[in-house]
Formats: sequence, C-alpha cells, structure tokens
Amino acid sequence: MSQPRVAIVGATGAVGEELLRVLEERRFPLSELRLLASPRSTGRTVTFRGEAIEVEALDASAAPAVDIAFFSAGADRSLLAADAFVRAGALVVDNSSAFRMREDVPLVVPEVNAHDLDEIPAGIVANPNCSTIVIAVAIAPIHRAAGIRRAVVATYQAVSGAGAKGLAELEHQRRALVAGEPLRSEAFAAPIVGNAIPRIGALGDDGLSEEERKIERELRKILGAPALRVHPTCVRVSVDRAHSAAVHLELDRLIDREQMMAVLEAAAGVRCVEADLATPRNASGGDDVLVSRLRADREDGRRWDLWVTGDQLRKGAALNAVQIAEHWLDRRDG
Amino acid sequence: MSQPRVAIVGATGAVGEELLRVLEERRFPLSELRLLASPRSTGRTVTFRGEAIEVEALDASAAPAVDIAFFSAGADRSLLAADAFVRAGALVVDNSSAFRMREDVPLVVPEVNAHDLDEIPAGIVANPNCSTIVIAVAIAPIHRAAGIRRAVVATYQAVSGAGAKGLAELEHQRRALVAGEPLRSEAFAAPIVGNAIPRIGALGDDGLSEEERKIERELRKILGAPALRVHPTCVRVSVDRAHSAAVHLELDRLIDREQMMAVLEAAAGVRCVEADLATPRNASGGDDVLVSRLRADREDGRRWDLWVTGDQLRKGAALNAVQIAEHWLDRRDG
Repeated sequence: MSQPRVAIVGATGAVGEELLRVLEERRFPLSELRLLASPRSTGRTVTFRGEAIEVEALDASAAPAVDIAFFSAGADRSLLAADAFVRAGALVVDNSSAFRMREDVPLVVPEVNAHDLDEIPAGIVANPNCSTIVIAVAIAPIHRAAGIRRAVVATYQAVSGAGAKGLAELEHQRRALVAGEPLRSEAFAAPIVGNAIPRIGALGDDGLSEEERKIERELRKILGAPALRVHPTCVRVSVDRAHSAAVHLELDRLIDREQMMAVLEAAAGVRCVEADLATPRNASGGDDVLVSRLRADREDGRRWDLWVTGDQLRKGAALNAVQIAEHWLDRRDG
Repeated sequence: MSQPRVAIVGATGAVGEELLRVLEERRFPLSELRLLASPRSTGRTVTFRGEAIEVEALDASAAPAVDIAFFSAGADRSLLAADAFVRAGALVVDNSSAFRMREDVPLVVPEVNAHDLDEIPAGIVANPNCSTIVIAVAIAPIHRAAGIRRAVVATYQAVSGAGAKGLAELEHQRRALVAGEPLRSEAFAAPIVGNAIPRIGALGDDGLSEEERKIERELRKILGAPALRVHPTCVRVSVDRAHSAAVHLELDRLIDREQMMAVLEAAAGVRCVEADLATPRNASGGDDVLVSRLRADREDGRRWDLWVTGDQLRKGAALNAVQIAEHWLDRRDG
C-alpha cells in the first residue's frame, strides 16, 4: 500500500515535538507531513528529516486529506476538529482525554491491548493518560499472569505532563531559586521546584482529582478489568519528564518471585532494573518502562509492591501514539 | 525543681541546629547548655539566646554531668556514648536508630504514646524515624477511632533526611543544572535534583530498604499494634525539608467522613487543610503535620486515602525530641 499522509495537530507543543522526534527515529513511513497548531504558532517552520515544514493554522472546517492525524492540542481542540479529519478520511490518534471513555473509541497501549484496534468504529483511537500508560505497561503482564484485584497507586509525576509550559516553569523556578528571586507559578497551583503538589486537575465530589479518576477508569478499560479496584493518589513532583509510581498490588493468585521475574522479563516495553536505580532521570529519553523494587509481602504472596518509571513524553504520549499508528498500518497493509 | 542542664550531641548537624532553634522558640527551661560534636566542629561557637557557646569534642569516656542529653550524631556515636551520659545522670533522647527497637527503650511521639514515658528503664528514650513520626501523628487518631488493619505508604522524602550534606547537595546540584555543569552525587546514590530515588538505605533480603523496615517496625511499636500490616515504599525526592506520604488505610471499623474530620480536627499536632494545598513547602518551618486529600473509597467505607506532610527537621526530629523532654520534665516535676 502507499505510504500514509500524516498530520500532527499541536505540532509545536511538548508532545508534538516529541512526535516529530519519534517519527524520525522510527523511520515511520510517510509520504507527506502536515503540521498544524494554534494561530500563535502558525508560520513557524519545523525541520523534519532535513526538510523545513511550515506550521499551518488548524481549521476545523477544512481538514487536510491525510491518512493518520495525531492530535495533541488539548481536549477542546480534539472535540472541535477530530471529526473533520475522520470525515476527510483519516484515522485520528488522539492524545487528549476527549474520547477515551467513549465505548466506540478503543483506548490502546499496544503492548497490552493491540487487539482492541481490530474495530475502530468512530475512526478515532485514544491514547491513554500518560501516567496510566506507564503503569499499564508494567502491571498488564502481572494481570495476565495472576489477576490483579486491587491496585494502590501513588504517582510522582513530571512537570512535562503539563506540556511545554510545565517544563519551562520548573526551569524558570530553578533559576529564580538559585538567584534568590521570588517564584512565580502559572502552570501549577503552587511552586513546583523543591515541592510536591498532591493534586493534578480539579477535585470531584468523591474527592478524586481528574488525574486520579483517569487512572482508575482508563486502567479498567485498557486491562479489560471493569471490576478492578484502583486507589490512586496523584502527585506532581519536581521532575522534568518521566512519570513514576509506587504500586501495591493485591492479586487473585499466588505467584512466586521466579515466575514474577519471568513474566516481567518477557513483557514487551518493560525493563527490569533490580540491580540499579530506576529513577525518572534514567527513564528519560528511553522507550522502556523501568520496573524495580519488586517485593512480595512476607506473609501474603498475593501482595506485591513495585516501582515503575517511564518517559512521559515518549511512552506516556508520543511513542505510544506512533506505536498505535504502526499497528494500524500493519493491519491495513497486512 | 531546678532547671535542667542540657547537652546536644551533634550540635552542628542539620537536626542539631534545629534543636537549638526549637529550644529557643519554646523557651525551654535550662540552666546550662553544653554543645558537643565531632572533632571537625570542635572550637566553633554557636549563639544561643544571645550567648556564644563553644562546641566541645564528644568524649565517650568523660560525659558531662547534665540532666537531658539530646543525641543527633548518628547511630554509631549514640551506641558509643549514650551509656556514659546515662551513667552521669542524664536522660538521653536519642534521634538515631540505635536503640529504637530495644524493648527497654520507649519509642515516643508525644501526641501518640506519651504514656510510654512512664517507664524509662535504660535512661534512654528513642526519637522515631522522621517519616515515621510524620505518618504516626496523622494516622494514630484514626487508629484509635477505627483501628488500622493495613497501611500502604508511599513516601516523598526531603533531602534534609540525609542531614546538612543532603541539603547542600540539592542546592549545589540546582546551581550546577542551571549553569549547565555536571552533577556530582555524594550524599545520594544518584542526582537528586529533578529526580526521585526509590531506595533509602540498603536493601535487605526481603527486598525492603532500611527506611521501609523502620517505618514498618516503628509504626507497630508507636501505635502499640504488633499485628499492623504495613507496605511501605520510600522514595527520596527533590524537596528541601519536609517529608510527605500518600497513605492508603484499611480500617477495622466503618467511619464516615464527618467522624473522620472530627477525629483529625481534634488531634494534637495535626492540621487538616482540605481547602488548600498541603505541600511540603507549606509544611516547612511549621510544627503541625498537614493532612489533606482525605477520601473514603466509594464502595468500601473502611478504606481511606490521605496525604500527609510535615517538617522533617522539626516534628520529624528536633521538635519531637524537645517535646519528649518537656513531657519528661512535667512528669519529673509534677
């Protein structure tokens, strides 16, 4: 089949820039690349494979004819413009939360549920929430092997989860702190340098933050486990670009350490690093989700603790979206 | 009774400096203050209540005659010198891990188990681990009200937990990062700026780190709950001086939100800050442990999640030690 025409909506954001990098690195086959963004970024040029591409304004009433459109410009723009791209013939891979819980939209982490790409009734595939992806890659193989009944999750989320403005704010605050200047906060509700902010998104009536609700609902959908109990606490930390989580699992079935290690070592997208420190700094820039600190409870072998960390902009966003497109192309052309 | 003579062993460390500040702020009654430290710091002078005090070398064979000795110079020095101070007539309040699990040594958070000061058979009272204190203050009132069966704990621990050298390392690395210089790590096993290190202390055969084992054992002893199940994951984060934790509790008995709020609002040393963000930056410099993000599980009202944060150098160390001494004085003089 012919190489696909590709568009990136939100090409100048933190995830958009990472999408360009991942498409280059993976030699993603494409015959044309259209870059779209808000009027603020229109007219800028971006270099892709040595070629300068001008950024166009996103116009929901005149979607370009492409085969794959990566959306990473926030839920509002996805709601506004995704349908136009679908009508113009594109598969939309949407990085926002706009469509994730829609029944006719697969929510896919390819290592976990690529089979959900068999049917794409609305022409849209949703890329899960970034911390959810990192956690799902690590725990899905455990779920397949021993059944996860309950997961208690505490996250350590990077500022890049709030996009380029989050990254800029941490850098700016580091400079201000070193210079003894006052800290200004816009991207986050409090200074993030030297801090931990235990709320990501607005709180609902049940006390869960938006981010926590995403982790709960999306993990259930991705794992195909509607009865899974999830107890998340989501925290923004002074880290640049990889998300981490401390995860406590209650399993249906006993699994010994040897089996657990075999399961994780065989899992796609996972790298066990028991011998070394799996820090977000080490995970940054890489494709794998790092898993370490794997511990069975001494008294109950169905309880396990682990630490996971993965690059939020790559596996948590851009890489996962490109992998979805690759799987879709394989199916289309296979 | 006469005002006590006081000694601080480890007077020039991060906790030692905070001890001096807390003794001043609380107008702790004392007739004499002796400051002791390692030979490196001997001869320095420290100002206390406007008076310059010279730092003396610690000599285990010639303990000064004091009534209260605060030890904060590491477990080795406590093991070496505490007995000499006891023999010379002092109550030793030890901030290290040296004596905490000894049956003849009370391990005390005054808001929780001041009654354990009724008997001090060895002349030593142990100050608990810093993250343990912060967590214990918050969950002890819940334990009294509804019984805690199990606690899953993920910590976000400040660099001050590693003392003055930890604080200096984060500051130095911030400057290096801003200046584009290489990061050097000595206090921690990896760069801590912009990072999270999921291991505090050496790992044991059961996979728990030293810090995790302390939280488990010390919580059981402080709460008087030997059957309590604790699942800790301890993580060092890029925060200066307050420790935080995401805590998931499984209770013996149902408790509704109104009761839970009443319990916490009546609890000494706790401040509920549901309306605001309870960040380690906000907790720093204060005496209270801040509690927020209090959530009952929607399906099981015996499961609660909460976020706690408290100043590691104050309530997590110096303040708690001074409070122990105050309670002891009350008993002695009462």
